[in-house]
Amino acid sequence: GKTTEPGLQEGLDTLALADSARAVNEPLPSWNNTRSRQRILDFVEAVTSNTSPDYVAPDDRIAVFDNDGTLWPEKPTYFQIEFVLYRIRQLAKTHPEWKKDKLIQAAIARDLVKLRKKYGPEGMGKLMAIAQSGITTDDFEKTVKNWINKAKHPVSGRRYDAMVFQPMLELIDYLHEHDFKVYIVSGGGIDFMRAWATDVYGIPVNRVLGSLPDLKYEKVNGKPVLFKEADILFVNNAEGKPMTIHRFIGKKPVMAFGNSDGDIQMLEWCSSGKGKTLSAFIHHTDSKREWAYDRQSHVGKLSKGLDMAPGNHWMLIDMKKDWKVIYP
Amino acid sequence: GKTTEPGLQEGLDTLALADSARAVNEPLPSWNNTRSRQRILDFVEAVTSNTSPDYVAPDDRIAVFDNDGTLWPEKPTYFQIEFVLYRIRQLAKTHPEWKKDKLIQAAIARDLVKLRKKYGPEGMGKLMAIAQSGITTDDFEKTVKNWINKAKHPVSGRRYDAMVFQPMLELIDYLHEHDFKVYIVSGGGIDFMRAWATDVYGIPVNRVLGSLPDLKYEKVNGKPVLFKEADILFVNNAEGKPMTIHRFIGKKPVMAFGNSDGDIQMLEWCSSGKGKTLSAFIHHTDSKREWAYDRQSHVGKLSKGLDMAPGNHWMLIDMKKDWKVIYP
Repeated sequence: GKTTEPGLQEGLDTLALADSARAVNEPLPSWNNTRSRQRILDFVEAVTSNTSPDYVAPDDRIAVFDNDGTLWPEKPTYFQIEFVLYRIRQLAKTHPEWKKDKLIQAAIARDLVKLRKKYGPEGMGKLMAIAQSGITTDDFEKTVKNWINKAKHPVSGRRYDAMVFQPMLELIDYLHEHDFKVYIVSGGGIDFMRAWATDVYGIPVNRVLGSLPDLKYEKVNGKPVLFKEADILFVNNAEGKPMTIHRFIGKKPVMAFGNSDGDIQMLEWCSSGKGKTLSAFIHHTDSKREWAYDRQSHVGKLSKGLDMAPGNHWMLIDMKKDWKVIYP
Repeated sequence: GKTTEPGLQEGLDTLALADSARAVNEPLPSWNNTRSRQRILDFVEAVTSNTSPDYVAPDDRIAVFDNDGTLWPEKPTYFQIEFVLYRIRQLAKTHPEWKKDKLIQAAIARDLVKLRKKYGPEGMGKLMAIAQSGITTDDFEKTVKNWINKAKHPVSGRRYDAMVFQPMLELIDYLHEHDFKVYIVSGGGIDFMRAWATDVYGIPVNRVLGSLPDLKYEKVNGKPVLFKEADILFVNNAEGKPMTIHRFIGKKPVMAFGNSDGDIQMLEWCSSGKGKTLSAFIHHTDSKREWAYDRQSHVGKLSKGLDMAPGNHWMLIDMKKDWKVIYP
């Protein structure tokens, strides 16, 4: 049969190429075409377009992200707890006296239920102090890097840094492309976070924020070092998050992403800004590809936040419906 | 007589113009042509020149500056104390019960000697708490801005923000032009500093660091605010300065400028970096144009630091000899 005229065929080829290029360059490719994705795209368009009434200057394009449960999972427990248990196993080799310590033995056995039910937050605080103090910030960084380079998640069998949420990585990149300053505002320890988060998220070290241990300044062989202490100077959770934002950033964010009741105040702080803002909870709804939990969970509980979301126009990002893939 | 040939005259004019242009563009114009100025220029050349063995990438070009005594004076007392006394005078109008309080009356009378000798640091701490707590961070910012827009220094009669050191303003600009990230690491309160320092020094708000008060998160008419509390979370002086640098910047600076023994650890922290570094004390040597003091001063004492400077290759910037002018 007669083929299409050469001129028309060329035109169709060009259209096909344009389509394919558009698909490649489409932002947030791991997000399904749902309302969540569209709200993000519309918001970024509104605050970055020169002619928009909601335009925000690049210096004020601050976006804040919680980490545990927002950028990577927090099940069966916080990954930093896994690091703490790993480090206690390492340290136990040179601490034979720990054999009589039942708390430490529960840690070495990775008995999460016993640790939670019998020893509670106080016991976990002791373990965190043992694992993360009396060490210089430099040596601690090396220890965390060593862990993240070889440890595997007990359920997925993946490296921990291969469990960051692919749709959120794309969101961070997308915001960077639009001249946002992206900050991590994590309840995790600041030194733990910085040892890997800068590389994994492409976020400068001074924008990775977390809880603060006390520090001690000392000279070792004439060289000044900072030792991490057992006491915590500041817990970066709940009310603490707006405080950290005030101190470390000095401006209210225009975007805030969290996933638990510990992020409520961060979202409130964002929503109280003068201009247009967008706040969201990641809702863990995917029992197959990740975990499904909210009101009843002992890690990352989201209950009051679920109640508050509609009235505050906070987005609920539904992992199951909104995300094509979970991990990279 | 015969004038110079037209061609030669043109050439001479061009040379004269070039000379004058060079003078205008010469960096650090308020610095005399002394060794101090040359060391700064040589250092910046060494760490910013692509082909230099001491090259430092822009992301790692961190410079830290103390504020009181380094970027503006601290005599007869810290300017923040003047603000505290001002605010207590303001608050006293609605606190008739303060008439019986001798500490507050000494503050209102601006009796600095009595405050120091009779009430000491504890008394000053009380006054600072009265003047700077129970107020939201937003209202506090307005109060400081209001003060700096109308208060005059008791000796010079100038506005406080017109007493920043012109040679240091030029140094900050010069470093910015060479892609340095310039931070203020002040013992002063972070909220006090930020209310004016960003405008005066051209330094982004998240790079203005200081001592941290406790904060309280509250809702006022449904809007979240942060109240400044009387207790201090963190004093950013001496050993505190490397801690603040670690937490807020996350990298060792390559340049550090201070003026008192409270800056020793910051200079040590800088000097302990892997590459080339430059640290300096501003030495207050100019009794006519500013103040002359070091080992015996009760504000900005520089004694141990003077002893340590030569062995550590820390520069002593001699205000009298090195600076053409002090104020803008």
